[in-house]
Amino acid sequence: MSDVILLDCWVSPFCMRVKIALEEKGIKYEDRAEDLIGGKSELLLTSNPIYGKVPVLLHNGKPLSESSIIVGYIDETWASPPLLPSCPYGRAQAKFWVDFIDKKLFDAGGNIWKTKGEAQAVAVKDFIEILKQLEGGLGDKDYFGGDSFGFVDIIAIAITSWFNAFERFGNFKVEDHTPKFSAWIKRCLQRETVAKVIPDPEKVYEFVLFLKKMNSIE
Amino acid sequence: MSDVILLDCWVSPFCMRVKIALEEKGIKYEDRAEDLIGGKSELLLTSNPIYGKVPVLLHNGKPLSESSIIVGYIDETWASPPLLPSCPYGRAQAKFWVDFIDKKLFDAGGNIWKTKGEAQAVAVKDFIEILKQLEGGLGDKDYFGGDSFGFVDIIAIAITSWFNAFERFGNFKVEDHTPKFSAWIKRCLQRETVAKVIPDPEKVYEFVLFLKKMNSIE
Repeated sequence: MSDVILLDCWVSPFCMRVKIALEEKGIKYEDRAEDLIGGKSELLLTSNPIYGKVPVLLHNGKPLSESSIIVGYIDETWASPPLLPSCPYGRAQAKFWVDFIDKKLFDAGGNIWKTKGEAQAVAVKDFIEILKQLEGGLGDKDYFGGDSFGFVDIIAIAITSWFNAFERFGNFKVEDHTPKFSAWIKRCLQRETVAKVIPDPEKVYEFVLFLKKMNSIE
Repeated sequence: MSDVILLDCWVSPFCMRVKIALEEKGIKYEDRAEDLIGGKSELLLTSNPIYGKVPVLLHNGKPLSESSIIVGYIDETWASPPLLPSCPYGRAQAKFWVDFIDKKLFDAGGNIWKTKGEAQAVAVKDFIEILKQLEGGLGDKDYFGGDSFGFVDIIAIAITSWFNAFERFGNFKVEDHTPKFSAWIKRCLQRETVAKVIPDPEKVYEFVLFLKKMNSIE
């Protein structure tokens, strides 16, 4: 059995986070694709009995779940390069933005493609407001981590893989509202560890189309 | 100015977490009560511009928000006694339960006192289900942290200060469903650092009665 196994789904931004973190640390791992629609594996259900969700990382047979917690574990287990600042205050600030993103960003995007008309206009407005707050956290830095790509960057960039779908269903452009945040996205996508993990935006869009049909959302 | 200042509200379980953690570490602090109904202080609004919520901890003038993140900062800043296990896997497991509690427990309790009839019966059932999952995480240990009181214990015990109110509005007893979890509550309440922070359950009940009236909930 491989030391490091990821129970994965290609379109999940939460799985992408774990893959980018492993790439950053240079850790080889076995990628096992889960069939979330056809049926989850027994290993997934026993490894994550509370949520039954990907990603699950198995390290020497021991399971970990919840993507932000897994990325934290990866950072503590394989020290170099560090993903979090060394000082407690910098670490707390990074965790604040990770928590903010986890609470808000993906669900706010979901409200865009799950709605239409007036409700969708509100969803787009809310989404942009969240991005503006996040852009405030980025400030004039190259990365959320400052000069170097780090924890918050990993957590956020994975979710941006769905932005093309959010923009097309919501008929808006992120770049028109948060140019610094958009420049940050482009900067991150040039990074090899990110580029090799983030899927083709068109494939994500087609997947969201499929999700809409499966859930009978017009 | 005091080195450590807490912007506080006596009935907030999230503030209680920070106070218990500071007591555990033996840190003296200045407690500043916020008037959340009459009007928040300028210091609170500027220290936590994203949420504008208590608790905020100011350490040497630098603000921190979000209770679980503050408790983590306290643990990293004042090393003894440690609140998290030293091994990355144990730390990740603790963070999993902290996240579980943060996502579910207080909101599930809120659904009890905000509803009535059939909706309330569902809310009570959901709440008990969450407690059973949490009890599974406790297992046969004295504390979530094992032999010693730690991070998860702090995060969870603070919320139990509202259980008397949840039980009275929902007409049920936590002890009838999760006896091990109830024994854990009693064990924690005997601890001096907890006992001096957790308010009188009757005062919490009266506060929830007041909240119901203020929000016109029958």
